[in-house]
Amino acid sequence: MDSPVRTPDPPTTAYDRLYTLLAEREADAFVHVGDRFDDLLRYLTRFSGPDRDYAFVYTEGQAALCAPRLFAQQANREFPGDRVYTVADQSALSASSRAMEALDDLADSCSSLLVPASFPSTSYRDLDVAVDTIDVLDTAAEDVGRRRKTTAERACHAAVQAAAQRGMARAEAVLAASERDGDELQWEGSPLTTERLRREVNAVLAADGVRDADNTVIGAGETCTDLHFTGTDGIHPDETVLLDLSPRGPHGYYGDFTRTFVAGEVDEWESTAYAAVTEAQDAALAALEDGAGTVASDAHAAATEVLSEHGFASGEVDVGMYHGVGHGVGVSLHEAPSLTSDTRLEAGNVVTVEPGVYDPAHGGVRIEDLVVITEDGYENLTEYPRELTPQSTHSRWEP
Amino acid sequence: MDSPVRTPDPPTTAYDRLYTLLAEREADAFVHVGDRFDDLLRYLTRFSGPDRDYAFVYTEGQAALCAPRLFAQQANREFPGDRVYTVADQSALSASSRAMEALDDLADSCSSLLVPASFPSTSYRDLDVAVDTIDVLDTAAEDVGRRRKTTAERACHAAVQAAAQRGMARAEAVLAASERDGDELQWEGSPLTTERLRREVNAVLAADGVRDADNTVIGAGETCTDLHFTGTDGIHPDETVLLDLSPRGPHGYYGDFTRTFVAGEVDEWESTAYAAVTEAQDAALAALEDGAGTVASDAHAAATEVLSEHGFASGEVDVGMYHGVGHGVGVSLHEAPSLTSDTRLEAGNVVTVEPGVYDPAHGGVRIEDLVVITEDGYENLTEYPRELTPQSTHSRWEP
Repeated sequence: MDSPVRTPDPPTTAYDRLYTLLAEREADAFVHVGDRFDDLLRYLTRFSGPDRDYAFVYTEGQAALCAPRLFAQQANREFPGDRVYTVADQSALSASSRAMEALDDLADSCSSLLVPASFPSTSYRDLDVAVDTIDVLDTAAEDVGRRRKTTAERACHAAVQAAAQRGMARAEAVLAASERDGDELQWEGSPLTTERLRREVNAVLAADGVRDADNTVIGAGETCTDLHFTGTDGIHPDETVLLDLSPRGPHGYYGDFTRTFVAGEVDEWESTAYAAVTEAQDAALAALEDGAGTVASDAHAAATEVLSEHGFASGEVDVGMYHGVGHGVGVSLHEAPSLTSDTRLEAGNVVTVEPGVYDPAHGGVRIEDLVVITEDGYENLTEYPRELTPQSTHSRWEP
Repeated sequence: MDSPVRTPDPPTTAYDRLYTLLAEREADAFVHVGDRFDDLLRYLTRFSGPDRDYAFVYTEGQAALCAPRLFAQQANREFPGDRVYTVADQSALSASSRAMEALDDLADSCSSLLVPASFPSTSYRDLDVAVDTIDVLDTAAEDVGRRRKTTAERACHAAVQAAAQRGMARAEAVLAASERDGDELQWEGSPLTTERLRREVNAVLAADGVRDADNTVIGAGETCTDLHFTGTDGIHPDETVLLDLSPRGPHGYYGDFTRTFVAGEVDEWESTAYAAVTEAQDAALAALEDGAGTVASDAHAAATEVLSEHGFASGEVDVGMYHGVGHGVGVSLHEAPSLTSDTRLEAGNVVTVEPGVYDPAHGGVRIEDLVVITEDGYENLTEYPRELTPQSTHSRWEP
């Protein structure tokens, strides 16, 4: 029998940070226009809307969604704000015109707007003639409330991270069951490729109710050094196989989870790299032990120091660790805070901890967990073992 | 043994339409900035890049991609244009600054730019101080070459539409195997829900190498009237079950495919609606029989006329068909041409043909195929039977 289908409750959005931002910027209203692929709009509206423009308006403490009529039922079901305006789809009104109508209805007067960086240029030009000033927010630098995840948001991350671990268990079992055949790895009668392994993982994710989101990165040997490789190359014995799974789960929240395996004999570089990376991850996690208040880049510094002790360089290099040790995750896969920034971490930040080292001559090793910063430490949403040689089963992660 | 993993060749992009647009608008260059979620940027660059901004530049007949350094390998592999510029990720340079650097390198002088509607406002403001004029393109109305699909693009659509049909076969088999238990439908020992059925479909799509793209719409009874329902409600005997599958497949191209079933007894409304909708689809397809040159809205008119004969209204109604009979599909699920527009169809247009009727008191019926317009007719990429009662097997579509 299937496991029961559970979905975490939908998170809501508190608009108080937006209220503060408007006061700081001396703007009358915040407006955003975009479609279902805009993560900020998803966060602000909780509306998993259509692939054409709709609008969000916030003014005088009220939040409104302007949605197409065909999505009226869904908009009313999903939007946690105050008002839903719907407009006939055949209407010639653009999303920005709808937003202006909503502003007219909600506010006595509106002469200055605040919009996000991704606000589309057509809407910008439309509104520029309707108001005195438009101020553009740098969403990367300024927080509208996304960084501190609520309990409901953490539950979404935990659910999708659990699915990612079940996907990994499937991949690990496939690798463990594969057999050497000359310089090829055979699985179920034909050569194992990154694409075959990817499909096995993605089917587990789908059956678990989450989407691979085109983020099932699998490298083998040299392609482990291409951080976002999604090719179809063969997997060979004795080389590193790096799986970085970032599915998107309930209510749009991402997981992020990486393990590296070698099916066959582990050589000296692989063994050294694996030891260095696990130790670097331990060091980065130890840097987060005090939780809220920690300077984010302390985690990056702790990891690179350990790697350096093992002979691996960091920074803008071709061999070693050429990426940061972690980043924030939410309704975007990459969002603030970065673990290379000098910001202080807050309780509720959800961040990856993912040291890795790469050498085109040998392959690549990366290990990644996803953790929630708490007032006095962190909670690791990842409980998957770290082992270089694939095991045939991790019973607690069986799909 | 697994079926061999096949992936269609990557389509390329011809930039001649962009060349013409620049001449028409008297602009020196076309610039776009966006991330992997921007479909136009995907079409122009073929780069399945990161979730942070990169830039595309076209000037003096040359196309350039400005990609982050960490994606240099991938950018060089995927971009069919002339130049790839890469910039260190730690650089403070914004994507628009990178674009300006590329323009300086490629063109003797550049004083007027053409940008698309979705061009981000921050980049617009950056460039507005660097050039004399910026003209904003209405991408919905103007074609940069996306509408006429090449042979390689059609192969991508055919591959993903085939996967959608295998997903549908799985859903139909589950419905056929389900059993009435009072007013519930039981499957494998527990009540069948839209979410359980969705996971079954999505696992087949994933195993087939395509992504459900959060587009596996399944309605049951009244929720069939909510065109984009992705809920978790129970499925009951004797009610309509509507599955609209729009996975995203090779190189970013979408499929789009709908069937409606009733597990149990078919009542008079269901039977009448199904007959009306199949006949309306036949009529819309017949309107496309002459292929290129056909006025697109002839298909919509043909369908609504048939529905009217069966007593179903169309347009802005609560009961009947309240959507258009079809839309273009490409690297966006919804793109030009619409089958409600008065444009003339061209060879290579890929469009849905999807009449449907809905009544909250009874449920909803929609049937959708995906076709390619040819010089003298159309090719249907969908060969799935149209039957209201679910069958236990369609052997040609077994996963």
